[in-house]
Amino acid sequence: MTAPLVGLIMGSDSDWPTVEPAAEVLDEFGVPFEVGVVSAHRTPEKMLDYAKQAHTRGIKVIVACAGGAAHLPGMVAAATPLPVIGIPRALKDLEGLDSLLSIVQMPAGVPVATVSIGGAKNAGLLAIRTLGVQYSELVERMADYQENMADYQPKIWPRKLSKKTPIFAPSSWGTRP
Amino acid sequence: MTAPLVGLIMGSDSDWPTVEPAAEVLDEFGVPFEVGVVSAHRTPEKMLDYAKQAHTRGIKVIVACAGGAAHLPGMVAAATPLPVIGIPRALKDLEGLDSLLSIVQMPAGVPVATVSIGGAKNAGLLAIRTLGVQYSELVERMADYQENMADYQPKIWPRKLSKKTPIFAPSSWGTRP
Amino acid sequence: MTAPLVGLIMGSDSDWPTVEPAAEVLDEFGVPFEVGVVSAHRTPEKMLDYAKQAHTRGIKVIVACAGGAAHLPGMVAAATPLPVIGIPRALKDLEGLDSLLSIVQMPAGVPVATVSIGGAKNAGLLAIRTLGVQYSELVERMADYQENMADYQPKIWPRKLSKKTPIFAPSSWGTRP
Amino acid sequence: MTAPLVGLIMGSDSDWPTVEPAAEVLDEFGVPFEVGVVSAHRTPEKMLDYAKQAHTRGIKVIVACAGGAAHLPGMVAAATPLPVIGIPRALKDLEGLDSLLSIVQMPAGVPVATVSIGGAKNAGLLAIRTLGVQYSELVERMADYQENMADYQPKIWPRKLSKKTPIFAPSSWGTRP
Amino acid sequence: MTAPLVGLIMGSDSDWPTVEPAAEVLDEFGVPFEVGVVSAHRTPEKMLDYAKQAHTRGIKVIVACAGGAAHLPGMVAAATPLPVIGIPRALKDLEGLDSLLSIVQMPAGVPVATVSIGGAKNAGLLAIRTLGVQYSELVERMADYQENMADYQPKIWPRKLSKKTPIFAPSSWGTRP
Amino acid sequence: MTAPLVGLIMGSDSDWPTVEPAAEVLDEFGVPFEVGVVSAHRTPEKMLDYAKQAHTRGIKVIVACAGGAAHLPGMVAAATPLPVIGIPRALKDLEGLDSLLSIVQMPAGVPVATVSIGGAKNAGLLAIRTLGVQYSELVERMADYQENMADYQPKIWPRKLSKKTPIFAPSSWGTRP
Amino acid sequence: MTAPLVGLIMGSDSDWPTVEPAAEVLDEFGVPFEVGVVSAHRTPEKMLDYAKQAHTRGIKVIVACAGGAAHLPGMVAAATPLPVIGIPRALKDLEGLDSLLSIVQMPAGVPVATVSIGGAKNAGLLAIRTLGVQYSELVERMADYQENMADYQPKIWPRKLSKKTPIFAPSSWGTRP
Amino acid sequence: MTAPLVGLIMGSDSDWPTVEPAAEVLDEFGVPFEVGVVSAHRTPEKMLDYAKQAHTRGIKVIVACAGGAAHLPGMVAAATPLPVIGIPRALKDLEGLDSLLSIVQMPAGVPVATVSIGGAKNAGLLAIRTLGVQYSELVERMADYQENMADYQPKIWPRKLSKKTPIFAPSSWGTRP
Repeated sequence: MTAPLVGLIMGSDSDWPTVEPAAEVLDEFGVPFEVGVVSAHRTPEKMLDYAKQAHTRGIKVIVACAGGAAHLPGMVAAATPLPVIGIPRALKDLEGLDSLLSIVQMPAGVPVATVSIGGAKNAGLLAIRTLGVQYSELVERMADYQENMADYQPKIWPRKLSKKTPIFAPSSWGTRP
Repeated sequence: MTAPLVGLIMGSDSDWPTVEPAAEVLDEFGVPFEVGVVSAHRTPEKMLDYAKQAHTRGIKVIVACAGGAAHLPGMVAAATPLPVIGIPRALKDLEGLDSLLSIVQMPAGVPVATVSIGGAKNAGLLAIRTLGVQYSELVERMADYQENMADYQPKIWPRKLSKKTPIFAPSSWGTRP
Repeated sequence: MTAPLVGLIMGSDSDWPTVEPAAEVLDEFGVPFEVGVVSAHRTPEKMLDYAKQAHTRGIKVIVACAGGAAHLPGMVAAATPLPVIGIPRALKDLEGLDSLLSIVQMPAGVPVATVSIGGAKNAGLLAIRTLGVQYSELVERMADYQENMADYQPKIWPRKLSKKTPIFAPSSWGTRP
Repeated sequence: MTAPLVGLIMGSDSDWPTVEPAAEVLDEFGVPFEVGVVSAHRTPEKMLDYAKQAHTRGIKVIVACAGGAAHLPGMVAAATPLPVIGIPRALKDLEGLDSLLSIVQMPAGVPVATVSIGGAKNAGLLAIRTLGVQYSELVERMADYQENMADYQPKIWPRKLSKKTPIFAPSSWGTRP
Repeated sequence: MTAPLVGLIMGSDSDWPTVEPAAEVLDEFGVPFEVGVVSAHRTPEKMLDYAKQAHTRGIKVIVACAGGAAHLPGMVAAATPLPVIGIPRALKDLEGLDSLLSIVQMPAGVPVATVSIGGAKNAGLLAIRTLGVQYSELVERMADYQENMADYQPKIWPRKLSKKTPIFAPSSWGTRP
Repeated sequence: MTAPLVGLIMGSDSDWPTVEPAAEVLDEFGVPFEVGVVSAHRTPEKMLDYAKQAHTRGIKVIVACAGGAAHLPGMVAAATPLPVIGIPRALKDLEGLDSLLSIVQMPAGVPVATVSIGGAKNAGLLAIRTLGVQYSELVERMADYQENMADYQPKIWPRKLSKKTPIFAPSSWGTRP
Repeated sequence: MTAPLVGLIMGSDSDWPTVEPAAEVLDEFGVPFEVGVVSAHRTPEKMLDYAKQAHTRGIKVIVACAGGAAHLPGMVAAATPLPVIGIPRALKDLEGLDSLLSIVQMPAGVPVATVSIGGAKNAGLLAIRTLGVQYSELVERMADYQENMADYQPKIWPRKLSKKTPIFAPSSWGTRP
Repeated sequence: MTAPLVGLIMGSDSDWPTVEPAAEVLDEFGVPFEVGVVSAHRTPEKMLDYAKQAHTRGIKVIVACAGGAAHLPGMVAAATPLPVIGIPRALKDLEGLDSLLSIVQMPAGVPVATVSIGGAKNAGLLAIRTLGVQYSELVERMADYQENMADYQPKIWPRKLSKKTPIFAPSSWGTRP
């Protein structure tokens, strides 16, 4: 796997801080990807070109981030046969509700795999799971990743509690002596 | 005015009942228009072609209706220099809130003149007002239209009320004898 | 492809009318799948067993439908390394907003590919696109499917319009003579 | 009462500041409790184990806090016969509406006693009232607690008001001379 | 258990169809209860009297249903040390959102255990779980109730599916031969 | 009291079914009122004339009903020194939320006394209470009205309940023998 | 007018900053009022006592502020025949939507005159308008107040605009030379 | 073009920071405009005068900004035959949802061309497009403006990415060597 498998696109470089956790996940799993600015509203034709050609260049999954009247994920999904993952970005008002609905409420025929508002990390993980359909090692690595999550140890936070309060953590269900 | 001045577009013929009041207004004002099915999601390139060529064919205003993750008005606005009027159509769930936000919350640079949910009649009237910038007779006719609205006479509805209750209507502010 | 590749699950047989369009799409594309009732709330352990074993049985994608405080897609996603597609089902109140938010707003670490409220058809199509990562013929068939959508011909609906109104359809952008 | 009667759980130690007021109330009423991190999404099986065994270890009430697509309270409620109190935690977007709906809109069969967004103090008080079913001294102490609330004396805040404005407080209904 | 343990109250007899499933659950578990109309807005003082005296008459849990600006559960909770379960009833507009927020968003100090909009069945089950703090046989019966829910067998609904589609149900995870 | 004291206005006769309960309340209390159609959007100047002259004609309170982008109550309040009561009318979409916010969220300086969506009966009662500032007999009659509400006897609805279930009503708090 | 005519109440002294603009308006109009802390949830009986006796003490209008599950205005309205003005206070989450709906969506029979979220100034002005029913000098002063609002002169803000841009203000509709 | 073609109005000078981007766009396109404070609530008659006379003074488009129960755009639209563009301004609470709905949900007969919450820049661009109906050079300049938007070059932001990640921008779709 050396050619990019995932296309990570956004409408403007101001989206990068929102999108970055998706890139970090792909890096962490060693999946090659490409990153680009593709705007549905500023460059609609280039956006369609990108979408139409992506699968011919070896791209397997497209991750697209947009906010407000967020048209990028849906329009890309209309022009590619690939799975498209949409990340709603919350703008100044409406708490991201407009972004979420503009991405998730797609009409029958053109699906967008929508993650949570600002959920770029999950978009990256969903791309990994999707690639796992072909690359079985990614399925195993995802299973390992999930086991690592399970091993998470909370820090000993509740210092203010009296010593009599039993404290337990995922790996030790019993009460504290 | 014999060539079409307004392009009235929608994503599917199922949108027609929602859109029809806009056509009726244009008919009423004698403004020639064209009607068509143009889908942002099924035929994105033809949609862009339509948007890009509209002003070269003499179209002055585009009216576009869409529902759910409603991308048609915004995508057309991205590819035409003409004013685009967007009609949000309420689908089965969410009372049209998704359609409204997907159309009105456009990013800076690409405006869509949004009317109310299901507000096709107002979309037609807004197209007339917009054409009035060039055609001064439409300004006069719109003023006449507004005067006719003012002459509206409510039917004598409150029959159940006792005769002592004064009733008034816009043209007779005094109380009933 | 004869063993099931997709697991289509729901919490109750009352969900079936909502889920059925996903099954129809899988049938249409010839993708073998299994259908089952798996409840996060009635049978949480069996739900986890199902989720944990799915990928060992050859399942590649899980599609899960739920409504209200919809926990099934997210809980399954927590126990499987496979991509999980969530379908929010609108219940009697709140227009499906609760179902949508309960599915899409997953915490970082556990992604659910959410489609629109009641969007089972898109869930099926997203499953096909996801399987396309491995099965290139599905990519081609999805591209064909999209071309067929583009060939859609609207019925001659606007009979009420006067003959002078130009009518156009996706395949004939010019105005009617 | 020395063994823990209440299990206070959350998905991550980052929830602790939200949850802490519940612990403080339990401390104030002298009710022994245990505190732990139990994640529906990272450790679903341990979460079920915890839920299934809680009543066998003497736990009488479970209080669970979660945010976003908040599945912890509902999933715990599915696996325990104990009353489960859910605290919605507001995350960065949507003002806690997603958390609230994901917890309160449970399907028939599996109740969660939901308190307000960020309402940990009320969760603690509800746990006390619930324990009062068995421990009548807690009913009395709750009645005392409510009387103390009634004795609350507002500070003399409206200094800016002219002296002629009568000021009254719960214990002195008359107007100020 | 022969004297009423649960007080089931509502503001008007028009609430009865919404409340009835709670009564059915209490009947099913053999828990004696009383049913009454108590209005926060029509009879505020009688409502307070009822709330203040309930625990002295042996009532252990109060279940209250209200809609719109729903004040009954919260006001009763202010005047009783007992646990109060609130059922939001959806009125004609706003899909029950007003009812839910008016009940669940109680200020710190006065908890209401809120169930879903129209969630009377869960209110009944929550009352049973709450009584289980004292009556251990109710804990066992609730555990049995939950096991019965797990034994639920979906009807053979997907008759339209081809015979090749594997079908499974909670009790038979394998695929159909 | 023979000249009209209350002006009951609405934008169209289609609002009458929503408004009628306000008229019924005024009739019931014997308060003379006038009824009229006054549109902020069709006849803005007549609307202002009406608002400006109302208090000079002896009107003491104005009740105004509107829906959608509901401007009538607020515009009338801007042009009269009288108290204006606004009734939000729910239109086809958005459950009346648009009507409510358009009426209640008035800028500082111009108050509108807003009642619930479709709350015309309460608008009538609020007009009576407002007139009570001058007419002390209306205060007494309102107090009587409230006592009558308190005497409300629920019909014997819960016939399906077993005879052992105690039933109580506001006038008989004890349990049924 | 020396005895208090308006009762200005709130649930806690933390509400004072929200309520203060109402007091300032009453001061400005020279209307005597009383200010107090009255909690529906901490002191429900005292709250009812206050509400029941207010009109016997000469109070003509009650203004009540509350947030979240805001029960104070509605409960007071249930126990007094006076007009009650409700001020929704936005709490930490939900932007005041819960407060607004809990106050405005009152059931038929018990009206609350609701103003905007945080709209204490308008609550004060509405109290003045309401008192104007009896005190005609307040009607005149309110008319004067409105005229003063009309005389408002915007500061010369748009300094950045080029000198060629015409600027106009309410008193000088023509364009700048 | 030297006399003002666009009237840019707002209710208070506090709206200016929200409105200013519209003025900047008009400046950028060299379109003369006038700027003024016109309040629907403080000076309703002057507002109507302004609206009625605008088209007689050569104004072709009116842009109006308002927040909360935003009545200015709709009331102006009721009194002018010109196209009116409405800018919803978000106030302290509700994230601008009240402003948006109060402007966009106009009744049939009186259209307002609504842009996004705070979308003054788009309001300016929509005014330019509207004027393009008469001034063909503005159509060309809008097309140029859109081409310039397409030439936007993202800054090289993703410095943190490893050098192996391909980066692309609108003008260079290929992957980085």
